Amino acid sequence: MLPPTELLNFLKKEEKFVIATHMSPDGDGLGSAIALSTALQKIGKETILLCRDSVPQQCKFMPGHERFHNFDTLQLSAVSHQSFKNLILVDCNDIDRISTEVSQISNLKFQISAVIDHHESEKPFGDIRWVTPEAAATGLMVFHIIKELGVEMTEEMAINLYAAISVDTGNFRYENTTHEVFSVAAELKKAGARTHAIYRELFESWSEGRFNLFMKVLNTLEMKDGIAFVRVTKKMFEETATFPDDTEHFVDFPRIMKDIKVSILFREIENDYYKLSLRSKDDINVAHVAEEFGGGGHKNAAGCRIRADFETAKREVLKAFHTIPRAL
Amino acid sequence: MLPPTELLNFLKKEEKFVIATHMSPDGDGLGSAIALSTALQKIGKETILLCRDSVPQQCKFMPGHERFHNFDTLQLSAVSHQSFKNLILVDCNDIDRISTEVSQISNLKFQISAVIDHHESEKPFGDIRWVTPEAAATGLMVFHIIKELGVEMTEEMAINLYAAISVDTGNFRYENTTHEVFSVAAELKKAGARTHAIYRELFESWSEGRFNLFMKVLNTLEMKDGIAFVRVTKKMFEETATFPDDTEHFVDFPRIMKDIKVSILFREIENDYYKLSLRSKDDINVAHVAEEFGGGGHKNAAGCRIRADFETAKREVLKAFHTIPRAL
Repeated sequence: MLPPTELLNFLKKEEKFVIATHMSPDGDGLGSAIALSTALQKIGKETILLCRDSVPQQCKFMPGHERFHNFDTLQLSAVSHQSFKNLILVDCNDIDRISTEVSQISNLKFQISAVIDHHESEKPFGDIRWVTPEAAATGLMVFHIIKELGVEMTEEMAINLYAAISVDTGNFRYENTTHEVFSVAAELKKAGARTHAIYRELFESWSEGRFNLFMKVLNTLEMKDGIAFVRVTKKMFEETATFPDDTEHFVDFPRIMKDIKVSILFREIENDYYKLSLRSKDDINVAHVAEEFGGGGHKNAAGCRIRADFETAKREVLKAFHTIPRAL
Repeated sequence: MLPPTELLNFLKKEEKFVIATHMSPDGDGLGSAIALSTALQKIGKETILLCRDSVPQQCKFMPGHERFHNFDTLQLSAVSHQSFKNLILVDCNDIDRISTEVSQISNLKFQISAVIDHHESEKPFGDIRWVTPEAAATGLMVFHIIKELGVEMTEEMAINLYAAISVDTGNFRYENTTHEVFSVAAELKKAGARTHAIYRELFESWSEGRFNLFMKVLNTLEMKDGIAFVRVTKKMFEETATFPDDTEHFVDFPRIMKDIKVSILFREIENDYYKLSLRSKDDINVAHVAEEFGGGGHKNAAGCRIRADFETAKREVLKAFHTIPRAL
């Protein structure tokens, strides 16, 4: 995986960069942005890190996470940032993923913008684009940029990049885990990433409330035709003092059963209105089912919304699985 | 990690080997034994695989698992195996871990025995010993033996060795995951190990009964002073048609909470008699507590038995944590 020469030249030639990652940031976006920023600073560049939303709790161990500006603090440092004429989007390839507020975006007046991302491209944005969907994580791409820039991998960079890769491969569980992912992990470990501690911070730092929510959700489990249905209600959030973000990965859990091919989490938005997250194994295409209800996604991970009471919604979804070809 | 010359010479010089792994076999023992056996066959040797107990369900995807003999089927092939004068113990370093029955062991009359293991040594056994506690898995050691023998890594060997390493590192989660573990994983992936599928077989092939047992156990959760107590009763096994083996890893789960430092599973053996599994984080030494009740183990993973009703047992354990220095 070789970064394009155009991108490397841009990084070498220019002096000041705003490095931005997407709203609702995750370990891959944050870690990639921080590591890239640190590497550029090592070769004498100035960088500003930008993210609309705050760093989530489980990423606060990442060294340098406190360096992110949001749009408000960026404005406060307006004098300096006005001289930053270069933008680098990291872990997204669309300016709308940085902010949905036109006023915030229109304040960003850049001469050159570059994109470093591994998501499927939809809206072309950027003068220089390096978009590699086959890369398991943007962190992997930034690793190669740092190598090509000839910057020594510090412990701080290694922690950030390892976290990025760990998050986006489910700690080496997902199908995107190539031999290159393992090779890079080996180098990051050598460079000082304490991998066990990083795993714990990312995946094992639940609050007690989140654990209680998890139990409540799993206790709603129903199974039919290899499909697992679990449900989270507004009342459960209230009872456990938790928020929708706390349900992250809950939908994955029922797939631990050999006979479960599909797992669906119904999250109550309001009375008789549900947001569904669908996950499947192997060749079962849940995107087809989600599309039936006006949603979408990927083959094994999709989402949609249904306005109906729970029993009706469940019945409709089950029907869709049985009528759509190759859905089950 | 270089295998000793004496071991390599033994493997090259001799012709017929019985390769045995420990009772209650796991992925590391089985995978290491199969891969070593296959490699030796590639250079013209004859091998017999031996394990007292049957291959557990989650390891039945491992290619070659059906080649294991137990002591009965080994006896049936007595004529041939009598000519096998060399024993290799894999993933254990004590002949008592092969079988506790003296009659079975005394039937094994070998001229030379070798040991390949990563457990701490207690009872010296074997003419040739390669015991490397710092190796994350025996599979890692066998990988290096295969390299040194100059045998090409086949897909079958790669699957077995990857499974061995995945099991013993908790799929790269545990502290024993060194940079070398990642490098070897990269090579095994290149050689054809379908790592996502292997993960699923090893960690995500629960029966519905096991899932129901898990829910029952987690629903018993109590927390005090950073210690999580969960409990499994004989009634729960009956209700879910499961067995003690099905509780594997259950005790780990409460540690997903940031504030939980110790997790303890109480398994009811009979009325007012419990087997305890203790797990801890960081420097909390649960072996000290287990020893207090006549048990033992390692710093972060230990076990013991207590004859008392549940409430009394829990109180006694809690007291031990507060009285033993550095226990909490």
